[in-house]
Amino acid sequence: MRKQGRLSLTWVFLSVFLLLAAACILSETVVADGFRKYNNGGGGIVEGRLNVHLVPHSHDDVGWLKTIDQYYVGANNTLQNASVQNVLDSVITALLKDPSRKFVFAEMAFFNRWWREQTTTTQDIVRKLVKSGQLEFVNGGWCMHDEAATHYIDMIDQTTLGHRMIKAEFNSTPRAGWQIDPFGHSAVQAYLLGAEVGFDSVHFARIDYQDRVKRKGDKSLEVIWRGSNTFGSSSQIFANAFPVHYAPPQGFHFEVGDEDIPIQDDPLIFDYNVDQRVKDFVDAAKAQANVTRTNHIMWTMGDDFQYQFAESWFRQMDKFIKYVNKDGEINALYSTPSIYTDAKNAANESWPLKTDDYFPYADGDNAYWTGYFTSRPGFKRFVRQLSGYYLAARQVEFLAGKNKTAPNTSKLGDALGVAQHHDAVSGTAKQHTTNDYAKRLAIGATEAEATVSSAFSCLVSNKIKGQCGGSQDTTFSQCQLLNISYCPSTEGGSSKPLVVVVYNPLGWNRTDIIRIPVNDSSLVVTDSFGKAIESQFVPVDKVTSDLRNFYLKAYTGQSSNQGPQNWLVFQVTVPPLGWATYFISKEPKTAERTYSDNNSLKDTAVDEVVEIGPGNLKMLFSSASGQLTRMFNKVTGVDTPIQQSYLWYTSSTDSQQSSGAYIFRPDSNTPTIVAQSVKLDVFRGPLVHEVHQQFSPWIYQVTRLYKDKQHAEIEYTIGPIPTDDNIGKEVITKMTTDMVTNKTSYTDSNGRDFMKRVYDQRNDWNLSVNQPIAGNYYPLNLGTFITDSKSELSVLVDRATGGASINDGEIELMLHRRILQDDGRGVGEPLDEQVCVGESCQGLTVRGNYYVSINKLGGGAAWRRTTGQEIYSPLLLAFTHEDEKTWKASHSTSGTMMNAGYSLPLNVALITLEELDDQTVLLRLAHLYEVGEDAAYSTVAKVKLKKMFTGKEIKEVKEMSLSANQEKSGMKRLSWKVEGDGGDETAPVRGGPVDALIQVVELGPMEIRTFVLTFS
Amino acid sequence: MRKQGRLSLTWVFLSVFLLLAAACILSETVVADGFRKYNNGGGGIVEGRLNVHLVPHSHDDVGWLKTIDQYYVGANNTLQNASVQNVLDSVITALLKDPSRKFVFAEMAFFNRWWREQTTTTQDIVRKLVKSGQLEFVNGGWCMHDEAATHYIDMIDQTTLGHRMIKAEFNSTPRAGWQIDPFGHSAVQAYLLGAEVGFDSVHFARIDYQDRVKRKGDKSLEVIWRGSNTFGSSSQIFANAFPVHYAPPQGFHFEVGDEDIPIQDDPLIFDYNVDQRVKDFVDAAKAQANVTRTNHIMWTMGDDFQYQFAESWFRQMDKFIKYVNKDGEINALYSTPSIYTDAKNAANESWPLKTDDYFPYADGDNAYWTGYFTSRPGFKRFVRQLSGYYLAARQVEFLAGKNKTAPNTSKLGDALGVAQHHDAVSGTAKQHTTNDYAKRLAIGATEAEATVSSAFSCLVSNKIKGQCGGSQDTTFSQCQLLNISYCPSTEGGSSKPLVVVVYNPLGWNRTDIIRIPVNDSSLVVTDSFGKAIESQFVPVDKVTSDLRNFYLKAYTGQSSNQGPQNWLVFQVTVPPLGWATYFISKEPKTAERTYSDNNSLKDTAVDEVVEIGPGNLKMLFSSASGQLTRMFNKVTGVDTPIQQSYLWYTSSTDSQQSSGAYIFRPDSNTPTIVAQSVKLDVFRGPLVHEVHQQFSPWIYQVTRLYKDKQHAEIEYTIGPIPTDDNIGKEVITKMTTDMVTNKTSYTDSNGRDFMKRVYDQRNDWNLSVNQPIAGNYYPLNLGTFITDSKSELSVLVDRATGGASINDGEIELMLHRRILQDDGRGVGEPLDEQVCVGESCQGLTVRGNYYVSINKLGGGAAWRRTTGQEIYSPLLLAFTHEDEKTWKASHSTSGTMMNAGYSLPLNVALITLEELDDQTVLLRLAHLYEVGEDAAYSTVAKVKLKKMFTGKEIKEVKEMSLSANQEKSGMKRLSWKVEGDGGDETAPVRGGPVDALIQVVELGPMEIRTFVLTFS
Repeated sequence: MRKQGRLSLTWVFLSVFLLLAAACILSETVVADGFRKYNNGGGGIVEGRLNVHLVPHSHDDVGWLKTIDQYYVGANNTLQNASVQNVLDSVITALLKDPSRKFVFAEMAFFNRWWREQTTTTQDIVRKLVKSGQLEFVNGGWCMHDEAATHYIDMIDQTTLGHRMIKAEFNSTPRAGWQIDPFGHSAVQAYLLGAEVGFDSVHFARIDYQDRVKRKGDKSLEVIWRGSNTFGSSSQIFANAFPVHYAPPQGFHFEVGDEDIPIQDDPLIFDYNVDQRVKDFVDAAKAQANVTRTNHIMWTMGDDFQYQFAESWFRQMDKFIKYVNKDGEINALYSTPSIYTDAKNAANESWPLKTDDYFPYADGDNAYWTGYFTSRPGFKRFVRQLSGYYLAARQVEFLAGKNKTAPNTSKLGDALGVAQHHDAVSGTAKQHTTNDYAKRLAIGATEAEATVSSAFSCLVSNKIKGQCGGSQDTTFSQCQLLNISYCPSTEGGSSKPLVVVVYNPLGWNRTDIIRIPVNDSSLVVTDSFGKAIESQFVPVDKVTSDLRNFYLKAYTGQSSNQGPQNWLVFQVTVPPLGWATYFISKEPKTAERTYSDNNSLKDTAVDEVVEIGPGNLKMLFSSASGQLTRMFNKVTGVDTPIQQSYLWYTSSTDSQQSSGAYIFRPDSNTPTIVAQSVKLDVFRGPLVHEVHQQFSPWIYQVTRLYKDKQHAEIEYTIGPIPTDDNIGKEVITKMTTDMVTNKTSYTDSNGRDFMKRVYDQRNDWNLSVNQPIAGNYYPLNLGTFITDSKSELSVLVDRATGGASINDGEIELMLHRRILQDDGRGVGEPLDEQVCVGESCQGLTVRGNYYVSINKLGGGAAWRRTTGQEIYSPLLLAFTHEDEKTWKASHSTSGTMMNAGYSLPLNVALITLEELDDQTVLLRLAHLYEVGEDAAYSTVAKVKLKKMFTGKEIKEVKEMSLSANQEKSGMKRLSWKVEGDGGDETAPVRGGPVDALIQVVELGPMEIRTFVLTFS
Repeated sequence: MRKQGRLSLTWVFLSVFLLLAAACILSETVVADGFRKYNNGGGGIVEGRLNVHLVPHSHDDVGWLKTIDQYYVGANNTLQNASVQNVLDSVITALLKDPSRKFVFAEMAFFNRWWREQTTTTQDIVRKLVKSGQLEFVNGGWCMHDEAATHYIDMIDQTTLGHRMIKAEFNSTPRAGWQIDPFGHSAVQAYLLGAEVGFDSVHFARIDYQDRVKRKGDKSLEVIWRGSNTFGSSSQIFANAFPVHYAPPQGFHFEVGDEDIPIQDDPLIFDYNVDQRVKDFVDAAKAQANVTRTNHIMWTMGDDFQYQFAESWFRQMDKFIKYVNKDGEINALYSTPSIYTDAKNAANESWPLKTDDYFPYADGDNAYWTGYFTSRPGFKRFVRQLSGYYLAARQVEFLAGKNKTAPNTSKLGDALGVAQHHDAVSGTAKQHTTNDYAKRLAIGATEAEATVSSAFSCLVSNKIKGQCGGSQDTTFSQCQLLNISYCPSTEGGSSKPLVVVVYNPLGWNRTDIIRIPVNDSSLVVTDSFGKAIESQFVPVDKVTSDLRNFYLKAYTGQSSNQGPQNWLVFQVTVPPLGWATYFISKEPKTAERTYSDNNSLKDTAVDEVVEIGPGNLKMLFSSASGQLTRMFNKVTGVDTPIQQSYLWYTSSTDSQQSSGAYIFRPDSNTPTIVAQSVKLDVFRGPLVHEVHQQFSPWIYQVTRLYKDKQHAEIEYTIGPIPTDDNIGKEVITKMTTDMVTNKTSYTDSNGRDFMKRVYDQRNDWNLSVNQPIAGNYYPLNLGTFITDSKSELSVLVDRATGGASINDGEIELMLHRRILQDDGRGVGEPLDEQVCVGESCQGLTVRGNYYVSINKLGGGAAWRRTTGQEIYSPLLLAFTHEDEKTWKASHSTSGTMMNAGYSLPLNVALITLEELDDQTVLLRLAHLYEVGEDAAYSTVAKVKLKKMFTGKEIKEVKEMSLSANQEKSGMKRLSWKVEGDGGDETAPVRGGPVDALIQVVELGPMEIRTFVLTFS
């Protein structure tokens, strides 16, 4: 009986085994004569032959012609035949058919949607495919981010989102950057989002057409790229620019329905063509080998939204591999960027050195992709604004304790991740897709706002910390439309005084100006200590009121009431990573008035020269022309003659190449000036002087000089750009000085490093200039500056913006674009943004700020870096109503996360503080200065972690790669030989290991260090 | 140790099991929480609810815009995005994902290509899917054959090819006819290729638009169809005409790239639309339920070449089934035509009765699909000619013993199977596809010719039978271009006499006329017994010589020599299924001449009336007009005034609907006459009188009356149809008599049953006449006849041909069409056939025959049936050269398969005799007469199998279904209730079981019986 029993058990397993073996699509573990017709016998590299690395991929835009979700589910196919779930479903099946097949996938925002929908069975299979290397994640961020219009913090955040998902689900770390489509490539991408996230290589298709010709000629498409002046070889990466594009060589495109000739190898079926197709393959490979070093070339076997039925591609590639290898002249194999890079590395070749970046990108004489640096400035600002908000919101979420089931910041993180896509923040998606991005951001922001309000309620409550999480009694509101003077909480209506909680997301103590719209004109502001503080009323101008009326209706559906008459301006001081509370109440009629009159005074008498500025910085205007003539700083002594004006380029409508969402092509190199003279309205008060100027019916500017700031804040309101003359217009502001700048200016790389730009010149080849304006535009995210022998003129921006220095001493910013043609790069719409109330539509009006400072030579960096952080991370305001006394009885009016009195060094920013799902905490600290940038600040900085988190004990400090998907200590990267490398490079300064006990983090210039902290 | 060992074994199986379970796409055997997101819990029928049967299918034309192989591999996608291997690859994977998913597939010519390429693993999986019912073969023939231009023998052959493959590989028998696309539906399809192959149902989309409206109104789209007058209810079938087409209802089309709105059920992804889409589904279902009886409706979930990524369809259907059933108002399920039919049957409903057929088909007022009855007459003839050849070739292949490794008839069978497709023989494929069909046929014919030659060598050799198979010493040649007087073997050049072996594929003894082109004008013909026999020389006319010159160059690349001057005509007599040998040699100069002068005499003197005919049948022509005036038969006494003329309809170029490959739309109802008068050239001799008439430069006619034949043979040569006037022309011949025919004529159904046709009338609805010519055309494959109170006028055709009887006493045949417009039904080419020699192209010239007989009323059937068989199965000629004596020394000059003196009854035809791969033999016998058709022949006939195969012993006689895929005795078919069925039908006469010992087969009228014989 026992024996019988045992045999039965074996028999059962045997039966089920056979049943399964027969009924299954076999994985790599059991193949035998399974499904494979074309086993190429391992399919590896063959030494001594030309190796063609076939890299199967699908380029899946995270939104473009369709929204991300339409792309995912395959809806709205009238616009584009694309369904990413088809891709992933069919690729998995195809990979299972043959273990030599491989596939790379990049966009985790898509993968995550798909992954959620899979059964655990499928998930297990996919895990095996990743483990075996058949499925490799490349890039691995939430999207394939843009490199021009993105901020480095957003790039890091969205990459982290994807990398951590890959790590969590697959215990895998991507090894290759895969930026195949972005329209130019940044230094920050190379060193920060490349080397520092652990990539050995980055691969891309788009470089300047002249550059490409030159590189093909001297086999320098593949280079070692050192993007950082500070880090040099220590953050270098192997960079592979494709010889054509990211599609296969012509004739080898095999999507369902494609017209390329399939290899036909069945002699029983007509049109047998193996010999011809093998010849085609070998010819194409040799042609590429002629422009490539080593015996390894890569074929990108895919294209936009391809592999909807993956078998259609793999079937052909199987056959090509079989027959090409049988032919024997060359060797073909399934590969990935990692395998390819390893093969390149193993070849022991010396590679050309590349420094700086690949901007601007042009794909033809008149086709500079520099328009998108500015396209959709409203959306670009929304992204940037929420980027800063996301950083701050995660801080307070951490402070109050993250609650996955309550409102949290994840949705905003997801939406921001999506928005970094190279057709999202770039402004090159269709309007409906852009609306979808905005909707996602709005949903995310609304939930983050709830998170912040809830956290504030908890933080300011006197209840013991850690008791947060229940329902709070206080409900805070925030105001997203403050810039158009819409804020119901501050506009009155409550019988109780207004309570303003101000949060400072910076690691430094901060004094700043707050402006809120109010209806009452007799209000008093008191601080946490009950002391009345200086405040100032500034009238709300008509332009702002009109904007408020129109956009409130357009965006919220609500009709505006009369609207507030005044801005209440006051100065606050907030501790680092902490908050302060201000109370705004009706001025007690009987009480003594602290400030006799806090209304702004409007200039009435007019001198020939109007000087404004309540502080050290002064601006002089000509009362005749209304034009700025001079800036000077009383303390530094810098004195710069300067004009500022608005102009517009006429968008080219050349049918061969018009200007459009991607491309900036002016019809003429001379822009049209908007106004030669303009009226000045000047308002003065103790905190701020404002100059209001209506340059044209559609350009309004307010220049503000604050008592305690070293810069001018320029608020521009541009739009609707008129097009009733059928002329597309690209509006710039231009600042003109007499500085001798030797054609040189500096622009930032993704808000981080500053790159030297020389007019009409490229480092890598002799530029043939065809577009002297468009070809000299560069992307700004932080700002730009010029220098002469004595001084610097710096301009900082509040969003991604195109900028240039066309003539010596000049800086121009492109602020808005409205164009009536499409530029033929696929989006298929003119960049003609409109806003509608009912049937009534008008061109989009854009409001924003830029900031201008003059400094002594060498003194600008400190202003740029510090002010840059303040612009990126404005103070957070939360409003409620309560009597000051009642409030104080149960709330803390001020507080900080850090030890009292501790602050981060002024050259260090906290760029991430986020509670992770496993209750560990992600911390990123960034040194803000490049080596040599500032005499005082370009030095090693130290952060004392123990002082950062008051009342908490850090149990473990684990240093991670930039994207936090691997421990820093375990990172391995390939070494490369570089042509002409003398080994004479100065080693960069980097902070040393963090001692587990003393927990001090050192940061060298430009260093960003990423930690996962575990608290006790 | 032992215990350990056992445990290990179990452990190994357990490990592999788990590995497999994780790594596999699971089949129905192991699902658990496998890949299914939308298990609908069995997905069966729900009583009491409206059940929507979703039938996933892909309509894969066996050639149309592309060739069959281009469709299979996915080549030539510029013409159409289609790849059947994508369909099959992806469907199999999709079916494995969920056992409730189903799919039906029809075209075995495609499936066979795919099947050959699969590994045994995949084959095993597919076998399981078929067994479980997930994959169901419908129709299951080699193609979805046309129903108008096909001969019933071809329909049976191509169905058998597919059915036997399905039986062999899957042990499965299709249960449903699936003729969804053919352009009208024949009676023979219903009863013969429906009921008699064992189908319970047939499903199709295309019926007349007026008929459809009426049927939707009274819910009679679904009927019980009794296609046969003879068999009535015993061969009835459930016929389902779709309410719209064979695509899904609008909005439910889900191929990759389709624009219908996918159901979006993930609340985390935007555009959730489950409620709306469920409503859409329910609404569409209810609309269809309104025109359908019972609670069951069918949705054809597919379209042309769909399911290239099957998951794209199934994903949506899974969701619809889930949410529609959750909604609960109606029930949706995966289904097949079989399941649907069973449900219909179980509903116990009474169904409307349908008799006759669904011809002609129109999809609009001016859109009668009656052009394709004639389109591409050259190709139609090629198909018909090879159909007869294939029948004969299989006979001799059987006689000599089939050799799978030597040349055999399989390729011709495959090519003919493909050619029956409803865009092949129909003439509605593109030209390049038609060329591909012709190429396949030519390849098949060439191999079959080699098979026949080799078999003849063996058969006529004196070597003992069964020793055949080695290389024969005699090499026979055959001549495919005899009709244009090209036959190198007979044209001279050999020093030895010509040996002609004549094979008779009919089961009867046969006397017939042979015509071969010769150069010599002094030849003598001797028979097997050495006796010189009567012969006649007829000059080769210039039209034929010119055709020979041009087409020889066009088809073979060879330049013609001078060409033969004469036809040598002689009469042969050949035993049934046997051969005779004739010797043609130089007339011995010195010997006595048997026939003093066998040259034809050309009439010189001309009477007013010219009478021709060497036998009983006479034709009278007016010498003034050259027109036929009268036919009379000396023996029967039938005497019919008759005119015959050529005319053409101008093809309509109406932009709304022009005439084209599918559609016949004349510009006017009055055709243009080609010639009012025509010259007569009359040649007379002992065997044949010929009247040659050049009606126009592009119409030539030869009328032949033979000594021993009761009909006139009309050979027409039409073309190149001139189009230099930019007018498309559709050429007819019209015979006009004074017969009072009461608008009635008869046309055959696929060469089998005759259908009564009444001018401007349909049995099933009140016809609104919009096209009085095109709307009265019917397809002919055998022929047509009209009757009056005394006599019959019958016309037989040599290929599929459109015919009509527009006015009383008239018969017209459309013989050729050349059209300059496309008719907008997809083929996208005008029907403008051209033939080129180098750069020189001309319109296709078509040569053919039709046959006219006059008979007493009731006497025509015997002529039609017998002559029909002779036309279908002409004598096979094989030529070699040898001295008569030498030949006779080693060869049998005559022989038969059957017992000497035995012959099949004259009302029975042998329609299949084929050695199968397992050495059994497929035998089909067909009774040729309908009940009541002929007084003598419409009776039970008996065939003695023992006498059919002389020298062989039949071990087993197994009666089979018509397609030979199941034993007749085991066939089960559903019973149906029919409205108004009185049960008063006379039971049809059918033969009884075949006694195993006496082996006599009885056949009732119209009966076809199919056997598999096993010989000892």
